[in-house]
Amino acid sequence: MNFAIKLSYLGTNYSGWQLQPNVPTIQGAMQNAVKKIFCKELTVHGCSRTDAGVHAMEYVCSVFDAPSFDAKKIPLALNTYLPCDISVSSAVSVPEDFHPRFSALKKEYIYKIYNSRIRDPFSVDRAYMYKRPLDEIKCREIASQFVGTFDFASFMAAGSTVTDTVRTIYSFDAWREGNEVFFKVCGDGFLYNMVRIMVGTIINSCEGKITQSIGDIISAKDRTLAGQTMPACGLYLNKVFYDNNYFE
Amino acid sequence: MNFAIKLSYLGTNYSGWQLQPNVPTIQGAMQNAVKKIFCKELTVHGCSRTDAGVHAMEYVCSVFDAPSFDAKKIPLALNTYLPCDISVSSAVSVPEDFHPRFSALKKEYIYKIYNSRIRDPFSVDRAYMYKRPLDEIKCREIASQFVGTFDFASFMAAGSTVTDTVRTIYSFDAWREGNEVFFKVCGDGFLYNMVRIMVGTIINSCEGKITQSIGDIISAKDRTLAGQTMPACGLYLNKVFYDNNYFE
Repeated sequence: MNFAIKLSYLGTNYSGWQLQPNVPTIQGAMQNAVKKIFCKELTVHGCSRTDAGVHAMEYVCSVFDAPSFDAKKIPLALNTYLPCDISVSSAVSVPEDFHPRFSALKKEYIYKIYNSRIRDPFSVDRAYMYKRPLDEIKCREIASQFVGTFDFASFMAAGSTVTDTVRTIYSFDAWREGNEVFFKVCGDGFLYNMVRIMVGTIINSCEGKITQSIGDIISAKDRTLAGQTMPACGLYLNKVFYDNNYFE
Repeated sequence: MNFAIKLSYLGTNYSGWQLQPNVPTIQGAMQNAVKKIFCKELTVHGCSRTDAGVHAMEYVCSVFDAPSFDAKKIPLALNTYLPCDISVSSAVSVPEDFHPRFSALKKEYIYKIYNSRIRDPFSVDRAYMYKRPLDEIKCREIASQFVGTFDFASFMAAGSTVTDTVRTIYSFDAWREGNEVFFKVCGDGFLYNMVRIMVGTIINSCEGKITQSIGDIISAKDRTLAGQTMPACGLYLNKVFYDNNYFE
């Protein structure tokens, strides 16, 4: 059987999703737990390689050719064997052609900033602390300039080997809730560090450190014109969209 | 000069407020930071001894006979020398007779429960995970029975040496926000573990494990009739009230 599994995790103590030797990873923790409940070594395929320290609200992964199992019982069974900073919320049987990464139509990320002169102990590792006043209305206006289909080469981390750098951003919003400023961006896919560089560019534009328009920076296809890469701690993979609502 | 200092902290990594040898404490961290900015060893007096793992939103402490210092500059100065899970939000000059503990008129605590079959990675160490359905309407009804002036000996941890066990509870509310259930209690003072035992008694009553009324348990002055002591991780010292609004 093939199962799609939805989970959330606090990424602070992990070197990202992808399995690597000698460091804790989400994929590694999932594969350990999957082995316990299916009594079989199975590869757990992820929807995205999240970086070290990045969090996820509704991450989707899958296992292929798993032994028969009641999908409804998978969450509590896996949670028994997972550390408490990873939690499986649901699991469903999916068709053979489902792949959490290749079947994904859209992905949504949230970037969270704690904006106050005084830091918040409860937001450490869960939001980026930004002390100067941040104008969320201006942030939203700049964010909206990313919406559309463009070559986002300027917003890809240097060293990435991806050659097709055209992506579509469907929406990019920013708003404030008390001292917290949120960015939410939805696209058909994202280049390496793209969300963190886009948010960094918005912040640097608000600060006056960047004066070129987003359109001009996109056109230039030059990473050096875009802003800083924001720290991982504020980034959340929020949701992944498929053509079927498998989880409903 | 005498200063009152307001701070918040995530208590997870501390053995409570009170200074003890060889373990991290909030008081110890504060005294280290105070020494750095005043260039003098000073005792930092707290409003309450919070237990290991208990958090605080608006804790109040004070220093007596400190060298002259611009109170407005104290928060950022102290935060420079404090670990990131402790944060000073404000400081004011106070009269000589102010004491954060003895001048306190009321204290308010919040107890936070994450109530879902599926645990939440973001609430670990910040709320108590409770899997069975919890009826917050019933919780509120039971909580309201604690309001008044009573001898709360039944709700004091065994072994405490306090002899005057009469306290006044001004309000005790419970409500739900999504999967989170909150308890908020305000009183003129609390016995050792009293908030955690009161919340445990409410939960055990909802579960049917306790059938006696709160009034009967109070009257009995018998700790064995009250409920379990809830874990420290869900408890927050929320606010301390004084006759003057020193911080406004």
